[in-house]
Amino acid sequence: MKGHADLGRDPWVLCEKELDLEHLGQTESLFALSNGHIGLRGNFDEGEPNVVPGTYVSGVFEHHPLPYPEGGYGYPEAGQAIVNVTNGKLIRLLVDDEPFDVRYGKLTKHERRLDMRTGILRREVHWTSPAGRPVRIKSSRLVSFSHRAVAAIAYTVEAEEETRIIVQSGLVANEAGPVPAEGDDPRVAKALHSPLVAVSQDVEQRGAVLVHRTAQSELHLAAGMDHDIECDAQYDLENEARADWARTSVVTVLQPGQKLRLVKYVAYGWSGTRTSTALRDQVAAALTSARYGGWTTLRGLQEEYLAEFWDAADVEIEGDPVLQQAVRLGLFHVLQAGARSEGRAIGAKGLTGTGYNGHTFWDIEGFVLPVLTLTAPEAAAYALRWRAGTLQAARDRARTLGLGGATFPWRTIDGAETSAYWPAGTAAFHINADIVRAFEVYRQVTGDITLEREGGFAVLVETARLWHSRGHHDSHGGWHMDGVTGPDEYTAVVDDNVFTNLQAARNLTSAVEACRRNPDLAAEMGVTTAELAAWEKAARNVHIPFDETLGVHEQCSHFTRFAEWEFEPNGHRYPLLLHAPYVQLYRKQVVKQADLVLAMHWHPQAFTAEEKARNLDYYERRTVRDSSLSACTQAVMCAEVGHLDLARDYLHEAALVDLHDLQQTTEHGVHLASLAGAWIGVVAGFGGLREDGEVLRLAPALPSTIKALTFRVRWHGMRLEVRIGEGEVRCAVAGPAGCRMPLRLYDEDVEVGDDVPLVRPLRTPQPLLPPPTQPPGRAPRRINGEGGFEVPRALEADHVA
Amino acid sequence: MKGHADLGRDPWVLCEKELDLEHLGQTESLFALSNGHIGLRGNFDEGEPNVVPGTYVSGVFEHHPLPYPEGGYGYPEAGQAIVNVTNGKLIRLLVDDEPFDVRYGKLTKHERRLDMRTGILRREVHWTSPAGRPVRIKSSRLVSFSHRAVAAIAYTVEAEEETRIIVQSGLVANEAGPVPAEGDDPRVAKALHSPLVAVSQDVEQRGAVLVHRTAQSELHLAAGMDHDIECDAQYDLENEARADWARTSVVTVLQPGQKLRLVKYVAYGWSGTRTSTALRDQVAAALTSARYGGWTTLRGLQEEYLAEFWDAADVEIEGDPVLQQAVRLGLFHVLQAGARSEGRAIGAKGLTGTGYNGHTFWDIEGFVLPVLTLTAPEAAAYALRWRAGTLQAARDRARTLGLGGATFPWRTIDGAETSAYWPAGTAAFHINADIVRAFEVYRQVTGDITLEREGGFAVLVETARLWHSRGHHDSHGGWHMDGVTGPDEYTAVVDDNVFTNLQAARNLTSAVEACRRNPDLAAEMGVTTAELAAWEKAARNVHIPFDETLGVHEQCSHFTRFAEWEFEPNGHRYPLLLHAPYVQLYRKQVVKQADLVLAMHWHPQAFTAEEKARNLDYYERRTVRDSSLSACTQAVMCAEVGHLDLARDYLHEAALVDLHDLQQTTEHGVHLASLAGAWIGVVAGFGGLREDGEVLRLAPALPSTIKALTFRVRWHGMRLEVRIGEGEVRCAVAGPAGCRMPLRLYDEDVEVGDDVPLVRPLRTPQPLLPPPTQPPGRAPRRINGEGGFEVPRALEADHVA
Repeated sequence: MKGHADLGRDPWVLCEKELDLEHLGQTESLFALSNGHIGLRGNFDEGEPNVVPGTYVSGVFEHHPLPYPEGGYGYPEAGQAIVNVTNGKLIRLLVDDEPFDVRYGKLTKHERRLDMRTGILRREVHWTSPAGRPVRIKSSRLVSFSHRAVAAIAYTVEAEEETRIIVQSGLVANEAGPVPAEGDDPRVAKALHSPLVAVSQDVEQRGAVLVHRTAQSELHLAAGMDHDIECDAQYDLENEARADWARTSVVTVLQPGQKLRLVKYVAYGWSGTRTSTALRDQVAAALTSARYGGWTTLRGLQEEYLAEFWDAADVEIEGDPVLQQAVRLGLFHVLQAGARSEGRAIGAKGLTGTGYNGHTFWDIEGFVLPVLTLTAPEAAAYALRWRAGTLQAARDRARTLGLGGATFPWRTIDGAETSAYWPAGTAAFHINADIVRAFEVYRQVTGDITLEREGGFAVLVETARLWHSRGHHDSHGGWHMDGVTGPDEYTAVVDDNVFTNLQAARNLTSAVEACRRNPDLAAEMGVTTAELAAWEKAARNVHIPFDETLGVHEQCSHFTRFAEWEFEPNGHRYPLLLHAPYVQLYRKQVVKQADLVLAMHWHPQAFTAEEKARNLDYYERRTVRDSSLSACTQAVMCAEVGHLDLARDYLHEAALVDLHDLQQTTEHGVHLASLAGAWIGVVAGFGGLREDGEVLRLAPALPSTIKALTFRVRWHGMRLEVRIGEGEVRCAVAGPAGCRMPLRLYDEDVEVGDDVPLVRPLRTPQPLLPPPTQPPGRAPRRINGEGGFEVPRALEADHVA
Repeated sequence: MKGHADLGRDPWVLCEKELDLEHLGQTESLFALSNGHIGLRGNFDEGEPNVVPGTYVSGVFEHHPLPYPEGGYGYPEAGQAIVNVTNGKLIRLLVDDEPFDVRYGKLTKHERRLDMRTGILRREVHWTSPAGRPVRIKSSRLVSFSHRAVAAIAYTVEAEEETRIIVQSGLVANEAGPVPAEGDDPRVAKALHSPLVAVSQDVEQRGAVLVHRTAQSELHLAAGMDHDIECDAQYDLENEARADWARTSVVTVLQPGQKLRLVKYVAYGWSGTRTSTALRDQVAAALTSARYGGWTTLRGLQEEYLAEFWDAADVEIEGDPVLQQAVRLGLFHVLQAGARSEGRAIGAKGLTGTGYNGHTFWDIEGFVLPVLTLTAPEAAAYALRWRAGTLQAARDRARTLGLGGATFPWRTIDGAETSAYWPAGTAAFHINADIVRAFEVYRQVTGDITLEREGGFAVLVETARLWHSRGHHDSHGGWHMDGVTGPDEYTAVVDDNVFTNLQAARNLTSAVEACRRNPDLAAEMGVTTAELAAWEKAARNVHIPFDETLGVHEQCSHFTRFAEWEFEPNGHRYPLLLHAPYVQLYRKQVVKQADLVLAMHWHPQAFTAEEKARNLDYYERRTVRDSSLSACTQAVMCAEVGHLDLARDYLHEAALVDLHDLQQTTEHGVHLASLAGAWIGVVAGFGGLREDGEVLRLAPALPSTIKALTFRVRWHGMRLEVRIGEGEVRCAVAGPAGCRMPLRLYDEDVEVGDDVPLVRPLRTPQPLLPPPTQPPGRAPRRINGEGGFEVPRALEADHVA
């Protein structure tokens, strides 16, 4: 393991105090700024050194071939990969005639700070050039939440001696860097290596606009820059542009203490339909608008936006500063990924890197959107509207597969299926019900029915039709779903996966209820009473395999009869998929990630308390957590059955996935679902919050090391604050005067008004079984309050390859 | 459908009486000559026109990349493809100054005849050049069974007017032609397009030797030619060679009635270890040896070899001339594929084309080798020795997969796994038991134990170890094999496939028995008594799923509970895999090819007569026969349960797969297993022969249209002839004086000596159930005695895409 960067323990700020090139890829991702439309990796202003130079605009991708040595009917033919677009964050500096580069000369100070209250990444550097000229550089960078198309950088250089300074602010297209795609097909590399074809270059007064297009996907992208310049000395300005670059150069000679200050405004626009000239003008307008208010206005709006977000979303954890910082960071990245995603998919890495080629997965609807729904519901609505907008592609896909209704893609950027391995792609039909759950949670939490009426309804009906065509009744009436893959990708192409069956049944029931709520829309879509009856019959008769001998649910038919995985006693090398073939993994009692356990989180009523305890115990012993989507769910269910300290350890793992680079893949982007999962672990785990019903349900409980916990969520336009600690649970509601919120707290139905908080004693659950153990080497590590990992509780292994 | 070539109905000869360029690809495969080491497609002597120009030497292949858009642990990285080697069958002719080409000028006679008694392909052409010069051409071609490295062509041209004649006999490497690999990866095409790199060229007195090597697999190949020339007029001879070609030119002027006769001897040699000079000398020696005896000797040896083969292998069918010819053709191609395969794999197409890239599959051990064992056992032994020789690669593969023992590749040329789709490759572990069955059948039929001691034993033990590591006992002791694929590739990655489980159990039992027979070898391999006990326990407790309600076996666990396939009423388009995704096919009650039905053929004792009847009825209705490996097995089991006319229809389909080009893929090579299956359909179907025991078992029965049937098989050095007809079964044995053969005829144990035949009344079975129907459009077509397909019995569909 190469370890991870040290970013301190400030509750609101990630702070890097020394240059750490070893973990540069990790910090590029952690310091990435995004508003959900534009994403800038935390690359240095001067561009180099870097691990992955990255500038992304949501929805800008390129096609590439998907080569199959043995093809099959219905295999997607074209892949999609996010494109590193024109880099507008580049500001190069020449000190006398030497380029500023942290690898050369002498660095006497280096600090980077990402403040989650301001949304600004600040950098301060004191550097002496190889020739001995000292300079002080400060930069502040933001990607505006209020101006969707705009990012800005305030860059100051100060001389300590008389120094000639040249600042080159640039736009660079087709930067060299790693290609974001799996496999080694030369056609893929060719498609993605220099993805941008130059269309036009316009030099403006203090900047330029470059327009490019992608060769295969035929998207036009415009990138522009403008500047404000202040200088204590006389300066010259020069603007140039070529096919793949534009440059604004400022040259001056500073005396000791003099400064050159440059504010760079960058704007992006893209379209698959509008012309390049329209895009050029659109970008120019965005620049004008940003420069009109200037840096101060942009910064002020940024702080306002975040203040409003934190007011209704913040989590306060007393007694665990590491977790405190990590949970806020998770929320911050979740917000960044979704805030202004309007009409586009949210990728599994947000806009922080090219991991998974920029694709969206069930990660988003399953983990990210419920968090956004409870904290920034308008962002959740954007993502759900995007999904609803891809319904026709999902219908086409269902037709291709010989199925009814619509089936949404396992991985995509634009709505077309691009998963090249069907057992862990097409067969994971559960994504359809996961999407429907996100729509339902949104409706229940916000009370907003416009989304249902403007797209969600059609998704519910078409996915119900999918499930109905995919499942079938046996001769005794039992309804089965054979040959599908649930969340656990180590047990694929199985019959009657409990998670999938419960999700499918609820999808069917939700669709029936939606039809009853919206008879006009149901009529428009030709839903018949026979269809409704068939959906209800299927849902009512869904087969849920249960092993009577062991008294546990079978994750899928036969699961508890499969052979056990033979773990190496000293800890098998993980992840198993890099060390064992699918043909062995798929029919062993080894679980990649929470599956039956996730079913218990999402379907609490389908299991008794005893079943939950027994199932958790059984599956904990067999879950290797080779996916970052697992720990948060294990945290939630461990908390529910009363293993609170174990829950906390899982929560740490979910929350620290990127801060501690636990998967050693953070350089490709943050693990958005795991970061969302950290919040889920806190709120659904220790808060016991369940949001999938007409009222919120709470069942708080705290682990031994957390003194108090406060969280806030939005519900029907109100803000609920829950404080757990000092032996009590205190619920307060803010909202329109006289508002009242119904709640179920533990087993009591209550109502909280904006007048006086509700206070109840905090309960300590009594677990039915002792805490379970995990496979060798896979017990979650326990960290102490000071933030370093302690010696893990179980025998340690190379836990991530 | 493009139909098929008309090759007459002669019982011993395929005869093409008119030029038929539309079916040229088909006749190139049907007229292919091979001795199992060298294969020459039935291309015209002059090279063009052609569909697939093909010259193959068994074992000469090239590697190519296997690109995966999403790779996985244990996926093979390198593909293998048979290479079109140096073409030595080329004889070009210039008539005056115009090249002979059947597409130009005037063809007044064209005849090609393949005589299965002589093994010679004759051709006779009368052609008038575009300039009006008539010539008569005769050629005879053979690939010698007696001289393994040698092929020869006798070529005569006769003038009708004074004509200048130039004959160019050539060797050509890297011929243009289709590339034998699936997918469209440019790296694959690059690797296979011009696969031969020139090493040396030697011009000899009347010919030349070219040596090439393959770039990646690093095999050296030498190809040489020599000639005998007779001419009624004076002639000149010229020899040349370049990197990729050599040419022997004969020029003469013939007067009317004068002839030029040229005998061309071609020899091949290859090696991965020997030097190019050694190979050059080896080929020169083969040429010298062939030319020493000359054409007449080669022809005589060829006839002798075939006479001996047919004496102990021939099948005579009275009342069905179409089937008669087809069954002989099948046997002939099976012999050609295996006769001199010494030490190399037999490909699924033999050496008749590049279909399946020249790979061997279970087709060979499952279908081809049992036929060779009963008719030409030395050829079966060659193939089995090759397989035993790849044991180390199979051990390595098992290690890679985390399994014990050895697992043989699903498809390969050199013994390394090259299957790029694991659900229908690696997961089809049954190939291991199929190989063991072929070893066991060989031992039981020949009585030869040297093969077991010299390789077979290790295969039995290592495959037993494989099964033991792959299966597991449930808590009640039942032994299960989960997540494997049986023969039915439409129901893949299943639990407890009956066929696989029965095969695995027998593999284990056979290994135990082999260890008891060969305690010394068992000790050498470290077989422990604990291992033997574990193998016996697993075999004894093997789980065989049975549906008590329906009274039929489940092809695999849950099969009878899966949804039924929804066939289009007018016949779905077949094969289904081109019209439906695996995710739909894999868990429906639709069967690609005999699976449970094959289990009943290979494990007759595991099923009662009633179970056989009920199972056959159940699976017939669900089997779409999208594989050419199915019809023969359906023929056998339909015959056993008494549906004799249905059995005959299946038999026709198996036998005519290439003569009627039923899959429309014959141009890529003949379907060797289906051709072997034609013989199996006759002998195991109507003869009721079962060879997998200490004595042969017979249970003859004839369909309504076959008057009499005679077949011969070899057993323990004796020859058994069985004649069925005129209400009786007559068994006669030939062999060493006084020899006696035990037999089980129907339910009677008998012994037949070489003195007097055994005669018993022919029985007519009484089926328990009426003949079953098949899926829409998939009833086997019924043909009349004259050979054309009649209107099919069921509704007709586009039965092959």
